[in-house]
Amino acid sequence: MTDPNFKPSSHKPIAGEALAQIFLDARTHNKWQDRPVPEDLLHRLADVMKLGPTSANCSPARILFIRSRPAKERLSPFMSEGNRAKTLAAPVTAIIGYDLEFYEKLPKLFPHTDARSWFAGKPDSEAHAFRNSSLQGGYFIIAARALGLDTGPMSGFDAAGVNKEFFPDGKVKANFICNLGYGDPEGVMARSPRFAFEEFCTIL
Amino acid sequence: MTDPNFKPSSHKPIAGEALAQIFLDARTHNKWQDRPVPEDLLHRLADVMKLGPTSANCSPARILFIRSRPAKERLSPFMSEGNRAKTLAAPVTAIIGYDLEFYEKLPKLFPHTDARSWFAGKPDSEAHAFRNSSLQGGYFIIAARALGLDTGPMSGFDAAGVNKEFFPDGKVKANFICNLGYGDPEGVMARSPRFAFEEFCTIL
Repeated sequence: MTDPNFKPSSHKPIAGEALAQIFLDARTHNKWQDRPVPEDLLHRLADVMKLGPTSANCSPARILFIRSRPAKERLSPFMSEGNRAKTLAAPVTAIIGYDLEFYEKLPKLFPHTDARSWFAGKPDSEAHAFRNSSLQGGYFIIAARALGLDTGPMSGFDAAGVNKEFFPDGKVKANFICNLGYGDPEGVMARSPRFAFEEFCTIL
Repeated sequence: MTDPNFKPSSHKPIAGEALAQIFLDARTHNKWQDRPVPEDLLHRLADVMKLGPTSANCSPARILFIRSRPAKERLSPFMSEGNRAKTLAAPVTAIIGYDLEFYEKLPKLFPHTDARSWFAGKPDSEAHAFRNSSLQGGYFIIAARALGLDTGPMSGFDAAGVNKEFFPDGKVKANFICNLGYGDPEGVMARSPRFAFEEFCTIL
């Protein structure tokens, strides 16, 4: 069933300024301006990143935006020492988690057929949740940059502690954590080297 | 060590056309125009997506671009039935894998310190490779769209078979597979429903 509302891509690269903002000049931030992130921008970010593709549209990512001081103080003890001060300083810190029972939502998300049995009870069910929530984490980072935010993603934290504190029913697990806000250029490190094409890609 | 070459973001949203191309109007493609993807565009895609952030810049994704007919025919038997014909028809099919020994490259990728011991031999080493290669998979999809390509990501394939065929030394595992090319709008399905903000996000 072809979608009559589909608008094809131009099949041209996006403008250089936009590509610079989302990839070429974008960097991980470690210091934050004292400038709040409005709540409606978090809604916009969610509305954009959720459009990225996942397996059978399963959309397993669950996001806690930690913004208030009390919530920051609940999170702080679980951050690794090198990540603690910057996380307390960031206007918003997102915990990107994944729902272990994501398949229960498939009747809503994938209405063409009942796809629950493709995942429920399968040995790779959690791997699907982890893969797809990580893909969604990638969309989250790029969407945030596209909307004018700076990001600081981190995996240095006590995941078991975060899970117990923020997801006590055991149905969601933390995947990674990402600071959001407007970065202070002082906290941007020199870009680390990347692989040459041949070091990670092969054309067959 | 602040980077003197860092160019701060405008902190404004990218142009609406660009946001439409990478997220708002972009869709998963199932039919492909008979229009090749030039090899230099695959290089450009790799050069853009590799800039996205990973933990300690560990960059575990390894990409096989399957383009020749013989390579397509090696892959074809491992695709699920619903994914086989479109994968054979796509000008390029990327196998996004992850390197289980990614940490061996850290002296190049993270030269500030020897970070190998942060990952090597740890029980969550493979989870780091899986998470970060999936993040890189998200960057790959968005970078491809940003460069004017259409994408068709898939996880319906025999991963053990693909691993044996394409990564016989056992050091790389397939994560997911993504068709690339110029889509035929006939193969775009109606967009599946997404969650409302409250269904997957909470502000604390």
